[in-house]
Amino acid sequence: MPLTLTSLPYEAEVGDQAAARSRLGVRDEKHSTLALERHVYRPRRPPVLSGSFVVTRCSEALPAAGNDEKIAALFPHMHRKPLVRIGFHSGPQPVPVGRPLRVGVLFSGGPASGGHNVLTGLYEYLATRNVSSSLLGFLGGPSGLLDDKHIEIDEMLLFKHRNQGGFHLLGSGRTKIETAEQLEVAFRNCEKLELDGLVIVGGDDSNTNACLLGEYIAEHRGRTCVVGVPKTIDGDLRNEYIEASFGFDTACKTYAELVSNLGFDASSAQKVYHICRLMGRSASHITLEVALQTHPNVAIISEEVAAKRQTLPMIVNIIADTVCERAQMGKNYGLVILPEGIVEFMPDIRALIAELNEVLSAPNTSNVGAAATGNGMAAAAAEAAAAADTKSEATIVKEIAAMLSDKSATLLLSLPVPFAAQLCLDRDPHGNVQVSKIESERLIAELVDRELQRRKHERTYCGTFSTVTHFFGYEGRCGLPSNFDCNYCYTLGLVAGGLIEHGYTGYMARATGLCRAPELWEVGGVPLTSMMNIERRKGKDVPVIEKSTVNLGGAVFQSYKSVRHAWRLSDDYRVVGPMQFYGPHADEITRTIETTE
Amino acid sequence: MPLTLTSLPYEAEVGDQAAARSRLGVRDEKHSTLALERHVYRPRRPPVLSGSFVVTRCSEALPAAGNDEKIAALFPHMHRKPLVRIGFHSGPQPVPVGRPLRVGVLFSGGPASGGHNVLTGLYEYLATRNVSSSLLGFLGGPSGLLDDKHIEIDEMLLFKHRNQGGFHLLGSGRTKIETAEQLEVAFRNCEKLELDGLVIVGGDDSNTNACLLGEYIAEHRGRTCVVGVPKTIDGDLRNEYIEASFGFDTACKTYAELVSNLGFDASSAQKVYHICRLMGRSASHITLEVALQTHPNVAIISEEVAAKRQTLPMIVNIIADTVCERAQMGKNYGLVILPEGIVEFMPDIRALIAELNEVLSAPNTSNVGAAATGNGMAAAAAEAAAAADTKSEATIVKEIAAMLSDKSATLLLSLPVPFAAQLCLDRDPHGNVQVSKIESERLIAELVDRELQRRKHERTYCGTFSTVTHFFGYEGRCGLPSNFDCNYCYTLGLVAGGLIEHGYTGYMARATGLCRAPELWEVGGVPLTSMMNIERRKGKDVPVIEKSTVNLGGAVFQSYKSVRHAWRLSDDYRVVGPMQFYGPHADEITRTIETTE
Repeated sequence: MPLTLTSLPYEAEVGDQAAARSRLGVRDEKHSTLALERHVYRPRRPPVLSGSFVVTRCSEALPAAGNDEKIAALFPHMHRKPLVRIGFHSGPQPVPVGRPLRVGVLFSGGPASGGHNVLTGLYEYLATRNVSSSLLGFLGGPSGLLDDKHIEIDEMLLFKHRNQGGFHLLGSGRTKIETAEQLEVAFRNCEKLELDGLVIVGGDDSNTNACLLGEYIAEHRGRTCVVGVPKTIDGDLRNEYIEASFGFDTACKTYAELVSNLGFDASSAQKVYHICRLMGRSASHITLEVALQTHPNVAIISEEVAAKRQTLPMIVNIIADTVCERAQMGKNYGLVILPEGIVEFMPDIRALIAELNEVLSAPNTSNVGAAATGNGMAAAAAEAAAAADTKSEATIVKEIAAMLSDKSATLLLSLPVPFAAQLCLDRDPHGNVQVSKIESERLIAELVDRELQRRKHERTYCGTFSTVTHFFGYEGRCGLPSNFDCNYCYTLGLVAGGLIEHGYTGYMARATGLCRAPELWEVGGVPLTSMMNIERRKGKDVPVIEKSTVNLGGAVFQSYKSVRHAWRLSDDYRVVGPMQFYGPHADEITRTIETTE
Repeated sequence: MPLTLTSLPYEAEVGDQAAARSRLGVRDEKHSTLALERHVYRPRRPPVLSGSFVVTRCSEALPAAGNDEKIAALFPHMHRKPLVRIGFHSGPQPVPVGRPLRVGVLFSGGPASGGHNVLTGLYEYLATRNVSSSLLGFLGGPSGLLDDKHIEIDEMLLFKHRNQGGFHLLGSGRTKIETAEQLEVAFRNCEKLELDGLVIVGGDDSNTNACLLGEYIAEHRGRTCVVGVPKTIDGDLRNEYIEASFGFDTACKTYAELVSNLGFDASSAQKVYHICRLMGRSASHITLEVALQTHPNVAIISEEVAAKRQTLPMIVNIIADTVCERAQMGKNYGLVILPEGIVEFMPDIRALIAELNEVLSAPNTSNVGAAATGNGMAAAAAEAAAAADTKSEATIVKEIAAMLSDKSATLLLSLPVPFAAQLCLDRDPHGNVQVSKIESERLIAELVDRELQRRKHERTYCGTFSTVTHFFGYEGRCGLPSNFDCNYCYTLGLVAGGLIEHGYTGYMARATGLCRAPELWEVGGVPLTSMMNIERRKGKDVPVIEKSTVNLGGAVFQSYKSVRHAWRLSDDYRVVGPMQFYGPHADEITRTIETTE
């Protein structure tokens, strides 16, 4: 089905909700006024993207981020390409009709706000260049490509989803296209569908796999150009070429509003500590950003924990000290935030987990089968675990502690029983401890409480300590995208279309200068391999796009570090409020994106 | 210190953020652009409140809501007063100078968005009428009155807090002023401070106590008029005289945004059920409103659970049935919302709790002391509980179940062990089960999972069921108030000032016609006793303002009921988005307030 960009869809309708409403053809009740207004919001983009443009190389061929030779061997067709930029034609504009293109697109991994605008930009690019083009959306993520489940995206579908949060037009999934067999199936389906291009919207792993697929297709002389778009709310897909992944801005604004509200709840009711865990397992960008927005009494940054080798008791003491000092001022309330991944960055917990994995896991066996492996420790541990119904959790933990080093045993036994038991009993199919399932905000709240009771006993503290714990994660993945995410995604979609038309494969669409107005952004592409390194995973060398962690020497962390001491004892909570789409605040972006490090 | 309303604070500064910023005298970084914009927002009010006005009676003397004779006996000076309304002078306006007034104000109970605007309205009323008036704010809630801890509220303080969320200018607390001794202390402090009026901002209990204090003062010929202002995010202070309590609108909008995001997260990632518990222990107004805003697959309404005598297994089956039907359509994801108080409305859980309280509690004793009471059951139960360190929780639960009726024992043993143990072990100082601490969203998630496993075994279900649970409560109490809550609170503050100047005591400030623009609201006061009834609490007859619960025959519930079936299987999630302060959606109010029942 050819595209039908019958009108410039936005201009005609800006502010015209009646038109939007009648076009949606649905009863009023279903669409909030705000959702309708967002339907008619016209995302902003650099002017170069409004017509046909040229794509020129603008750097030398780039090496990989590390292990260049190994990356080159893995990606002979993709590697050592230059950066490219999109620019105006220097002569008169050519007639704006390109060849008809067939392009597929899919969402990979957890949703992030703005995904639908990638589709919108892509569609508009294709339709503006040639109305005989087609845009195919694969359903349910990468598995949609493997199973060839797709829909043709038309103007009406996009109209319903543009500037709206979520990935629900297509759905998403975590299937990875990485084995030889999967690559072959994906390639065959691209061929069958005669795709000129495939746009993969995803995080670091998905983009690594996008490059594998690009390589496979190039090697087999396929026609499909594979282009990636940087997505992840955690903000850890960020490097010298990519300033931000989409979804981060909206997610941080959503969390910051809630955390800010809790700060004022603390200082209004004056009787609880709110302890909030925020999304971000591998990096603390979200926690750092939210700290800068909300001014909590304590914010723990995983990267600092690792750098300073701070153990669990040290973190507990940092918080307990703050509680004590505040209590002396008559303040038995406060606000503490932590990143999701915190415990995995503590050296003592890491050592404990490594030992537990050793002791508890038996290769390729569930805990019931462990007894049969001949691994005596694992068998004993499995036996202990299997007795959970009759023995108390405390007894089981003690039995397992007896198998650990003194240090780890002491740590395990110092944990509240339910958490210790969770570490001992709750394992993934490979027998590994499921660290990500630990509700670290509850663990830390309980340990701080215990430490404070100890101090009370010692008469070095005489306050009250009551906590309410929170985890903010999923709430921030599918909200209405901020103006920034609307503009950024729309721009990335247009850029991805351009890269495909101009035959670039193994590239990621990018826009830079994001701290400026969208009209001033520079746009182009970066070769995926230039962001790659080799990592050892499960005994194998694998290519990865390195996750960006918080740079402790960088401007964002330093600006937090320079003020955090003042926030400990004051109630300097900052009003954030719900994200606004109109008014002078509407185009503000997060500090993290604003700051070039 | 006399008031200094040096200028009409808003008009001069609307939209003038630079002026606001320089007046706040703080560095830029502390105040977000949005917070500043809100500082200069001019709340709307009925025009009658812009100058001096008359207060006239507009009904017969009102009886109590129930037990009129008993209420009359308890409140001889307060009872059987008429409704009053505020209206324009019929002749020419008198010179707008009143006598100087001294007024105290306090926040009682949990915070709710808009409280600072009650202060703003009150201050403006007093300052406009006579600049020699004073406004005293009691710190930390009712205890601030008992301990005479107060500040003088001046223009600068208010400027910093107007249109901002939270109660942090004064703080709040849950101390109740209800005993004879407390009433005497409160009265003495009012006398000492020469208060013409005392404004109590609180929920049903706080307003009942406001009336007790008004009665006490009147009986002792004090000069202080006591006026209440209706506050509670739960929305259960609502009756034929009061259309809404402030804070409900903002809270619902905050929760609805999050729940809406989770709906789209479910349909985007297509692999989890989000199960959300929302604030509302005694009533489900919030859950009902959020359901209407977000279109979840299942919303449980406590009042319906009670009316239909739905047991825990019945609720579990309602959800499991929906999950099964959706699985047949290939949808292994969805959105479920429940009110905080849900389990307390289930007849089977109520019976179990009553039995546990009987078996486990021994008067005035902790569980350790229970053995000494001679109550054999309690002693045995306490012994069982004390053994928690050595026995497994499962064993303890079994021992306690043996002391219950068959029905309750079966129910207790059917619960997941940690929840059963929580019921048996986690008790308040009176030995009562702490029902409100039960995380019902987790309990129900686990029971539904178990039921689905059973069905899978029976081959009547073959999907996957993975849940993420959430509780939204504190996040919604201190956000930037919606335009409605800004306007409503400001209006109530002006009205409270007027009622005091005109000598009304034992009244609650009110505005009606809230579904219309603020300029069209009618304003006045309602006698507190007219909303009261007698309830038996702990063996005593006590006056209470009855909590409003969801009216199952009313328009709001019926409109939900008429569509909920369609929402079960469709993914009809509605986009809510963050609350906006500007644009056509800014003045929208919640369906509950909009609807007159």
